[in-house]
Amino acid sequence: MINFESYNPTKIIFGRGAQKEVGAKLKEYTNKVLFHYGGGSIKKSGLYDEVIASLKAAGIEYVELGGVQPNPRLSLVHEGIKICRENNIKFILAVGGGSVIDSSKAIAAGVEYQGDVWDFFMGKAQLKSALPLATILTIPAAGSESSNSMVITNEETSMKLGHRTNLIRPKFSILNPEFCFTLPKEQAAYGVCDMMAHIFERYFTNTKNTELTDKLCEATLKTIINNAPKIMENPKDYDAWAEIMWAGNIAHNGLLGTGRQEDWASHGIEHAVSAVYDIAHGEGLAIVFPAWMKYVYTQNIALFAQFAVNVWGASDPFTDAQTLALKGIKMTETFFKSLGLPTRLSQINVKKEDIALMAAKATTFGPLGFFKKLEDKDIVAIYNLAF
Amino acid sequence: MINFESYNPTKIIFGRGAQKEVGAKLKEYTNKVLFHYGGGSIKKSGLYDEVIASLKAAGIEYVELGGVQPNPRLSLVHEGIKICRENNIKFILAVGGGSVIDSSKAIAAGVEYQGDVWDFFMGKAQLKSALPLATILTIPAAGSESSNSMVITNEETSMKLGHRTNLIRPKFSILNPEFCFTLPKEQAAYGVCDMMAHIFERYFTNTKNTELTDKLCEATLKTIINNAPKIMENPKDYDAWAEIMWAGNIAHNGLLGTGRQEDWASHGIEHAVSAVYDIAHGEGLAIVFPAWMKYVYTQNIALFAQFAVNVWGASDPFTDAQTLALKGIKMTETFFKSLGLPTRLSQINVKKEDIALMAAKATTFGPLGFFKKLEDKDIVAIYNLAF
Repeated sequence: MINFESYNPTKIIFGRGAQKEVGAKLKEYTNKVLFHYGGGSIKKSGLYDEVIASLKAAGIEYVELGGVQPNPRLSLVHEGIKICRENNIKFILAVGGGSVIDSSKAIAAGVEYQGDVWDFFMGKAQLKSALPLATILTIPAAGSESSNSMVITNEETSMKLGHRTNLIRPKFSILNPEFCFTLPKEQAAYGVCDMMAHIFERYFTNTKNTELTDKLCEATLKTIINNAPKIMENPKDYDAWAEIMWAGNIAHNGLLGTGRQEDWASHGIEHAVSAVYDIAHGEGLAIVFPAWMKYVYTQNIALFAQFAVNVWGASDPFTDAQTLALKGIKMTETFFKSLGLPTRLSQINVKKEDIALMAAKATTFGPLGFFKKLEDKDIVAIYNLAF
Repeated sequence: MINFESYNPTKIIFGRGAQKEVGAKLKEYTNKVLFHYGGGSIKKSGLYDEVIASLKAAGIEYVELGGVQPNPRLSLVHEGIKICRENNIKFILAVGGGSVIDSSKAIAAGVEYQGDVWDFFMGKAQLKSALPLATILTIPAAGSESSNSMVITNEETSMKLGHRTNLIRPKFSILNPEFCFTLPKEQAAYGVCDMMAHIFERYFTNTKNTELTDKLCEATLKTIINNAPKIMENPKDYDAWAEIMWAGNIAHNGLLGTGRQEDWASHGIEHAVSAVYDIAHGEGLAIVFPAWMKYVYTQNIALFAQFAVNVWGASDPFTDAQTLALKGIKMTETFFKSLGLPTRLSQINVKKEDIALMAAKATTFGPLGFFKKLEDKDIVAIYNLAF
């Protein structure tokens, strides 16, 4: 185990009807918010009306900004910053999935900064303060509802970049599994893949003596794997959604990475794909992760064999570790397929000639990953394995 | 899963040398602290000198109050409150184990309250504010370094009572497994039992659909069970201590109880024993928990069978659930014995005629527990099973 700091001050309010508390909870912090959301889904589901009613009941003023798209855009972040400045708004309420929350975090980061908020993503400036924010989560996936990270796409430069700081952890997040009942099946599948990927990024490490966090990662992965088929089968299965929604939070709230060196190469490799092709992040991860695993597993065959046995239940006393390791990777890929996810770049119409461009984007700031350090040529090889 | 709120804002600073940061970290909050500790162990280990040096380097004034005993006493809490008031101290630094931290929490709760701090434990008053505190943990056991609870013994009335509120969660806690190297073996064993008990209190529940937290409980218990023999064998095994120390925190930071109705009868049953006999809490739990399990397991045989299989690795395809359940309980008891812990009241010289008195104390505020509600007569039966 390596030395670490662990800090996650976001209060989670979880369960049926939890959204009804939003106005009263916000009142502890503010009298005025930017109410930030995505497309029409929260209006169709009735959540929009519930939020407005709760804000009004608590006497909280609000200015609305909808229109967040998947792979949230820098231009809308700029608009949000402008609105907050013009209206003297000091608190952001995000209602939606990871994209809405990340967009809100970027707005929160930008309002009090004199330069362009994109500076933080480019590593040109250090974030010193951010507006507080709260969230109502409608898509379990990104874990952004309590994480320290945000990912924004600069549509002018086709760059999708992340930034991490404890300053953007929400004050509170409301998670009601009932919100998931109306999620399109593919969204549900993307979310499942995204949260599994967050655990993979932490699980595959060169750090030794990580028994507790290994086991916690395995426990969370197994729960996701057991419950994902249930929500695909019956989208109104509250109990299964509750497991998935809570697992999605735990996957990315920091706990599972404590004392371990995390990897994060696959996220970078995926971001380059979705920056160029505007696919969903979870979709890209279903393609990238099995290919990454195939490329790197020889780095620690025992760990990949452990993954196969403890997560996937693969076991055969007469089999060697390498065979087990490969079986685990195969089972991962098969599982993603069973959720209806693509597992090849060719399935999402990526052009082979764009591989070099994507690899160059992925390594803009240098090689990726810690489990195995990946240079441009390695990433090209992974894209080819994923083709 | 039942609705829940989860909140744990304590920053954990974990690893080798972490104590060196204490002065600098405190400086973010205060210029003056009450430095609260126990007996001579931190002086012998050199930690006392390190803390003083770090406080001085950061320019932090301090007033010392040592002398916290196991089952921390109300009288010393009163003394701490007086010192804080007289010296205008607004921040407590606890350096020690759960007793020192609980004593610090009670001081933090009492300084700004006009009445007697014992009122909070008796349920006579509602805590509205508390001084902030930080800890350097030297005994992994109670989980008090980030929990919302404190337990104090009123030596005048021989009552040992707990109180829970988010207001007493420390701002930060420093955990360095090296501090554990010099712990007496029995202290290490008490700690292991205490953290396991914290998980048991959450694991045995009537709440249905708790797959994720079941698995997280099992993961944490298995890690403790795998590493406890290593620290007993080699008290300087950093890696094993790191697993134990982090597991002890996770056991009681709130995560493992999310979405579940917790029980807490056994803690109440133990508190009555250690209030009368002044034994260590972990020692009492090793006696009480197996007896409690024997008394209540028929409430949910399937859950106890799951416990036997998933935690203890008990399995026999030709065995029924009841046999498995009993095997798990037996293995728990055997494990405690293997750590050198007593598992019978008679071993710690409890007098049989005190059972009625202890049961009456345990039920001062009514029946105990939620897995199975226990009246006075049930608790007498459990004490008898433990005899």
